[in-house]
Amino acid sequence: MKKNKVAILGATGSVGQKFIELLSNHPWFEIDELAASDKSAGKKYSDAVNWVMQIPLDKKIAGMDVKKCEPVLNSKIVFSALDASVAGTIEEDFAKAGYIVISNARNHRFDDDVPLMVPEINSNHLEIIKIQKFEKGAIVTNPNCSTIGLVMALKPLDDEFGIESVNVVTMQAISGAGYPGVPSMDIIDNVIPFIGGEEDKMEIEPKKILGKITGGKINYATITISAQCNRVSVIDGHTECVQVKLKKKTSKEEIIKAWNNFSAEPQKLKLPSAPEKPIIYLEDEKYPQPRIHRNLGKGMSVSIGRLRECSLFDYKFVILSHNTIRGAAGGTILIAELMKSKGYLDKYL
Amino acid sequence: MKKNKVAILGATGSVGQKFIELLSNHPWFEIDELAASDKSAGKKYSDAVNWVMQIPLDKKIAGMDVKKCEPVLNSKIVFSALDASVAGTIEEDFAKAGYIVISNARNHRFDDDVPLMVPEINSNHLEIIKIQKFEKGAIVTNPNCSTIGLVMALKPLDDEFGIESVNVVTMQAISGAGYPGVPSMDIIDNVIPFIGGEEDKMEIEPKKILGKITGGKINYATITISAQCNRVSVIDGHTECVQVKLKKKTSKEEIIKAWNNFSAEPQKLKLPSAPEKPIIYLEDEKYPQPRIHRNLGKGMSVSIGRLRECSLFDYKFVILSHNTIRGAAGGTILIAELMKSKGYLDKYL
Amino acid sequence: MKKNKVAILGATGSVGQKFIELLSNHPWFEIDELAASDKSAGKKYSDAVNWVMQIPLDKKIAGMDVKKCEPVLNSKIVFSALDASVAGTIEEDFAKAGYIVISNARNHRFDDDVPLMVPEINSNHLEIIKIQKFEKGAIVTNPNCSTIGLVMALKPLDDEFGIESVNVVTMQAISGAGYPGVPSMDIIDNVIPFIGGEEDKMEIEPKKILGKITGGKINYATITISAQCNRVSVIDGHTECVQVKLKKKTSKEEIIKAWNNFSAEPQKLKLPSAPEKPIIYLEDEKYPQPRIHRNLGKGMSVSIGRLRECSLFDYKFVILSHNTIRGAAGGTILIAELMKSKGYLDKYL
Amino acid sequence: MKKNKVAILGATGSVGQKFIELLSNHPWFEIDELAASDKSAGKKYSDAVNWVMQIPLDKKIAGMDVKKCEPVLNSKIVFSALDASVAGTIEEDFAKAGYIVISNARNHRFDDDVPLMVPEINSNHLEIIKIQKFEKGAIVTNPNCSTIGLVMALKPLDDEFGIESVNVVTMQAISGAGYPGVPSMDIIDNVIPFIGGEEDKMEIEPKKILGKITGGKINYATITISAQCNRVSVIDGHTECVQVKLKKKTSKEEIIKAWNNFSAEPQKLKLPSAPEKPIIYLEDEKYPQPRIHRNLGKGMSVSIGRLRECSLFDYKFVILSHNTIRGAAGGTILIAELMKSKGYLDKYL
Repeated sequence: MKKNKVAILGATGSVGQKFIELLSNHPWFEIDELAASDKSAGKKYSDAVNWVMQIPLDKKIAGMDVKKCEPVLNSKIVFSALDASVAGTIEEDFAKAGYIVISNARNHRFDDDVPLMVPEINSNHLEIIKIQKFEKGAIVTNPNCSTIGLVMALKPLDDEFGIESVNVVTMQAISGAGYPGVPSMDIIDNVIPFIGGEEDKMEIEPKKILGKITGGKINYATITISAQCNRVSVIDGHTECVQVKLKKKTSKEEIIKAWNNFSAEPQKLKLPSAPEKPIIYLEDEKYPQPRIHRNLGKGMSVSIGRLRECSLFDYKFVILSHNTIRGAAGGTILIAELMKSKGYLDKYL
Repeated sequence: MKKNKVAILGATGSVGQKFIELLSNHPWFEIDELAASDKSAGKKYSDAVNWVMQIPLDKKIAGMDVKKCEPVLNSKIVFSALDASVAGTIEEDFAKAGYIVISNARNHRFDDDVPLMVPEINSNHLEIIKIQKFEKGAIVTNPNCSTIGLVMALKPLDDEFGIESVNVVTMQAISGAGYPGVPSMDIIDNVIPFIGGEEDKMEIEPKKILGKITGGKINYATITISAQCNRVSVIDGHTECVQVKLKKKTSKEEIIKAWNNFSAEPQKLKLPSAPEKPIIYLEDEKYPQPRIHRNLGKGMSVSIGRLRECSLFDYKFVILSHNTIRGAAGGTILIAELMKSKGYLDKYL
Repeated sequence: MKKNKVAILGATGSVGQKFIELLSNHPWFEIDELAASDKSAGKKYSDAVNWVMQIPLDKKIAGMDVKKCEPVLNSKIVFSALDASVAGTIEEDFAKAGYIVISNARNHRFDDDVPLMVPEINSNHLEIIKIQKFEKGAIVTNPNCSTIGLVMALKPLDDEFGIESVNVVTMQAISGAGYPGVPSMDIIDNVIPFIGGEEDKMEIEPKKILGKITGGKINYATITISAQCNRVSVIDGHTECVQVKLKKKTSKEEIIKAWNNFSAEPQKLKLPSAPEKPIIYLEDEKYPQPRIHRNLGKGMSVSIGRLRECSLFDYKFVILSHNTIRGAAGGTILIAELMKSKGYLDKYL
Repeated sequence: MKKNKVAILGATGSVGQKFIELLSNHPWFEIDELAASDKSAGKKYSDAVNWVMQIPLDKKIAGMDVKKCEPVLNSKIVFSALDASVAGTIEEDFAKAGYIVISNARNHRFDDDVPLMVPEINSNHLEIIKIQKFEKGAIVTNPNCSTIGLVMALKPLDDEFGIESVNVVTMQAISGAGYPGVPSMDIIDNVIPFIGGEEDKMEIEPKKILGKITGGKINYATITISAQCNRVSVIDGHTECVQVKLKKKTSKEEIIKAWNNFSAEPQKLKLPSAPEKPIIYLEDEKYPQPRIHRNLGKGMSVSIGRLRECSLFDYKFVILSHNTIRGAAGGTILIAELMKSKGYLDKYL
C-alpha cells in the first residue's frame, strides 16, 4: 500500500518530536514535510531542533528542510503540534486553504463545528465536520492530555450506568509541560499544586466528548466535574484519583467487567495505533503506577486500579495514561487513522 | 529552670531519631534514657542506630546505653516512637506501671479513654485521661501524619461555619514510611497510589479529634470523610488536595480570615514548639509546595493555598504540613509541652 | 528451529526477573524451569515474586512452579542470577552434576579455569572451560555491571594503541543494587559516594578480561586501574568518566574511528542479542546520558562521548551502558548465544 | 554597632536571592539597595522577583524599589550577583566610580590585579588591590562554586606536603545553574556529563588561589589539574571525587590531621560567616553526602571522606561543599567580612 504523505506543524517542539517518533515506520502515513516557526524555517531539521526523544533522530527526517507554517505545503493532511499562542490562526488558515488539520492544540476544541475526538469514545462526532465552516478543509481536535485518560475510564460507566458527577485530582508528569518546561529546581523533592488552565479544561472537555449529537450538533453531557491538577516528579504518565457518582447503582464487579470488556471502533477497525485493550484493570492494590504501566498497549492503553466504594460518591479509583502518547501525539495519530479508515481523508490524498 | 528528664521508646527508628533531633536543646525536656528493641538494647546508641538525620548525632546521646522497652526506666515521662507491631502492649505496660506515655503509634488512638491530641484543636480532651483505666499512668496519642495537617485546616472552618463533609487526596512524602522505607526503585520517576491503612486512618481520626466531650466521653464529630492516599517523590512534607462542604455558607474572604486569625491554647501559653502562626495562608496560586514551605514555623505551621469554589463541594484548597515534625515527633512534643503547662505532668516529675 | 530449554537460578530477584523479561520470545532459548531460595520453592512463580519489570509478567511463566536450587533440573543449561551469598556452592554443585552454569554472580569470576566473558572482547577465553575442574559441567561468568561498559570502551584502544593505565569514576544507577536495594531516603536529592566492593571489582576484572591466553591459562593484562564508584538518582544506566594513558600516542580521530569500526565475533555470528554496533560514539558534547541512550542497541550498545585530551593522562571521555541489560542479564544471555553458536552447548542440549 | 549599608547587583537572580537570604540579620551588613536589569528596574522588588528561596521574602526587602545597575547607588560596598554576560562592564564602571565590588561573576577573576579570594586560603592576596588599576574603587572576586570546595581540601595538603597534580570528577547540584536553569526533563532519572566552561575554570582557578605573591604579583601555583564536570539530580551541594599526587610522601593519618586541624584567618578573626571548622573529615565510608552534610557549618564547612590510597596518584577522597552558600553568596560575604575586619572597607563606609 502506498503511504499517505503528511506534514507536521510545530515540528521542533516536544509534541512535534513525539509525532515524528511515533510516525517513523507508520504503516499508513509518511512524513513528507516539517513546518515550524520563522526562527526555525529555512534550516535543516537537525539544526533547528533540540531533539529530546529517546530514539535517535532518523537520518531522513534530520535532513529535511523546515518550512514555514503557511498553507502552501504539498501534503493536504497536517498534524498540528503548534503552541496555543499561534495555533488558532494558523490552523484556520490551513483549513480555509483546503487542508485537513488534526490538532493537538486547544484553540479550536470548543468551536461548535469542530469535533473534540477520542476515537474509542465519540467516533460519530466526526460527522459534524461535514457542516464545518471551511469550504474544503477542516479542523479536528484532540483533548488535553489529562482529559483523555479520564474520559476513557468514564465512557463504559456512562454507557452502562450513567454518570452524574466526577471528582478528579491529578498527579501529572513533567513532559506535559514540554521542553524546557518545568525547571528542575521546581520539581525535585517537590510537588507543584497548580497547572495553569488545566483544571478548566478537565472540567469542560469531558462534557463535549461524552456529548450526544442531536439536530446536527453536539449536546454536552450534563455531568458535574470538579478537577484539581498537580505536577509531580514523574517523566511520563499522568496518574489521576477519580470519584464518580452513577445514575444507576451497580456493583464493583459490574464496573470492572464494563472496563475489561470495553472495545470500540478503533479496535474493530484494527487501526494501527489502537491498543488491543483500550482499558486494562489491574488487581494489585498498589497499581497503576506511571513508571510501570505507562507503556502498556504501546502507551495507548489506559490502566485503572483500586476500584473501591466511596462514602461521598459511589466509587473511587485510580487511572494512569501516557500523556505524550495516548494524551497527545499518539491520540492525534489515532484520530487520523480513524478518519482514513472511515473515508474522511479520501479527498485529501 | 531545671529540665524534666524524659525517655524515648523506639529510639533507633526514624521517628525516634527525629525526637532526639527536636529535643536537643529543648528548654523544658532533657533526654535521659533511650530504649529500643532487644536487638539494640545493651549497645551504645551510636552503635545501635543508623543515624539518618541531617544534624550530626549529639555526642552525649551517641554515648548513651540503649535500654530495653520495659517499665523500669527512671524518667516517668516517655515518648513512644514504637512501631505499631509492638507499641500496643509495651505502652500499656508502661501506663500500668505509672508512666505517662505520649505516643506517636496508632495502637491506642481509638481507646475510649485515650485522647487523640492536636494541641491547637482539642486541648480540652486531655481531661479524659483523669478517668483512664490505668491507676497511676496514662497514654496520650498523636494522630497520623496525614491527619494532622488536615484537621488543622478544618478546625477554624468547623468552629465558624460547621463542616458537613470532607474529601481529601494526599501526595505524601517518603519519610512518612520510615527508614529504609520506600525502595528508590518504587518512587523515582513514579507515584504509588496506595499507602496501607492510611485512608482508613484519615477517614476516622478527624472525627475523634474534632469531637466534643459530653458526659465525660468524646462524641465523634458527624462529618463524612473520603480519603485517597498517594506516595510521591518528596523527602518531607505531605501535600493534600482538600474539598469541604460547609453547614453555613460563607465567602472565600471569611475562610481566609478564619485561617489567618486562628490561634489556640499552645500560642496563648507560648509553648516552646508552638508556631506563632499555626496556619499560614499563601496567596500565590502555585503555593504551598513541600520543598519551599515545609519548614515554616520550624516545621510546625500548616500552609494553605489555592482556596477556590468547587462545583461539587463548597470549596477546595491545598494544604501542606511537615510530616515528621508537625506530623510526628514535633506534634508529640507539643502535646507534652501542653500537658506540662497545664499541670498534667506534675505528678510524673 | 526447536528452542533449547534453559533454567534460571535465583529467578525471583531483580536480575532473575530481567532474565525472564529478556528471554521472552528469545529465538534460541526457552525458559523451562525456575528455581529460587527455599522460601520461594514450591510456590507458583506469580505468588513467589514481587514482579518489578515494566512488561507484564507472562502468563505461562506466572504459572510455573518454583523449584529448589538443586541440581535435579531437567534443563542442563542454567542461568545463575543468584545472590553472591549463596552462588558459590550452588553453582559448583550444578557444574559437578554436569550442568553448564552461565552466571552473573561474582563468586567464581577469578577461578583460574573459569572464563570471565564479554563476548565482543574475549570469546577465545571460552576454550579454558575445556580444562575446567568439573568433569562434565562447567561455569562461565559475566563481569560486574560497571566493568562491562568500561572494558568495551577499552578493548579497541588496547588492540590498536595499547593501554598503560585507566582512571574511572562512576555514577551508577540504583537498579544495580537490586530490589528493594537503595532506600529512597538515601538517594533522592543525594549522591552516595560508596558502593561496597565495587571499586575492587573494577580495578581487577578488566585485567582478566583483557588478558591473553598463553600456555592454556589467562595472563592478566598489565594495566594500572584506579576506580571510584558513586550511586546517583538514576533508574538504569551507569555513566563513567574515564581517563586513559596509551602506550602508543594517537589522535582523537583515530580513537573515534577505532570505536566506530569496532565489531567482533557476536556481530559476525549475528547472535540474537548482539547489537549491530557494540560501541556508538556520540558527537554532541552533552552526551551520552543515561535516560536518553541506555536503550541504544536494545540496551546492548555502549555509548561514548566527550573524547578530549587530558593533562594528566592522554585522553578522557564518558561512557554509558545499561547496567541490567548489557551489564547483567543481557550480557549473560549473549555469552550463552556465543557458546551455542560455537558448539560449546552441544553436549548439554 | 551601626551596620554598613550594602547594595546587591543582579538582585533578582538566584544568586542575588541567596545574598538577600544570607544577609538578613547579618551582624555587620545591611541591604540598602537592590539593583537589577532594566527589565526589573523601577519595579518593587516583590514584583520583579520570582522568589525561590526557602525562607519567606522579608517584607522590608519586598518593598524596596529595584534600581538600575549604574554607579549612582548610595552604598559604596556592592555585592555582584550579575550574570557573566553583563558583569564585566558593569563591575568595571562601579570600580571606576569608586565603589568596592565583591563579585561572584567570573569576568574579572583572571585580571592580574584582581584577587580571586577564598578567605581561609589566600587572605594575603587582598593586598594586590592596592595596586589595582581603578583609582578609588576596586574589584575582588569569588571563585567558581566547584572550585571552592576543592581548594579548601587542597590547601592544608599543599601547605604541609606540596601538591604536584590533582584529578577531579564532579557531581554538581542543579542550583549551580541558577533559575530556571536545568530543565527537569534533562535531569530526572539522568546525569548530564557536561557543564559549559566549568572544567576550564576548575583547571585554572586553583592555581591562582594557591599562588604566592612575589614582586607585587600573584605567581600561579605549578600544579597540573584535570577536571571532569557532571550535573546530577541534587538540589544543593557539589560532590567531588578527588585524586592527588603529593610532593612529599605522607600517611593517611597525617592527611586527616592536616584537615582536622586546619583553621585560618577567618576563624582567628571570628568572622560572622566563618565556620568554626572549615573542613570536617567524616569517618563513615559512605560519607560525605550532599543531602546530609551540605549544611554543616551553616553551609560554610567543606566535608571530606573516604581518604584512601590510589594506585595512580597518591591518595583519593571525596569532598562535598554547599555550592550556593560556601560556593557563591556565602563565600562572597565572607570575603567582605574579611575585608572589613582587615580595614579594606574603611574608606567605603
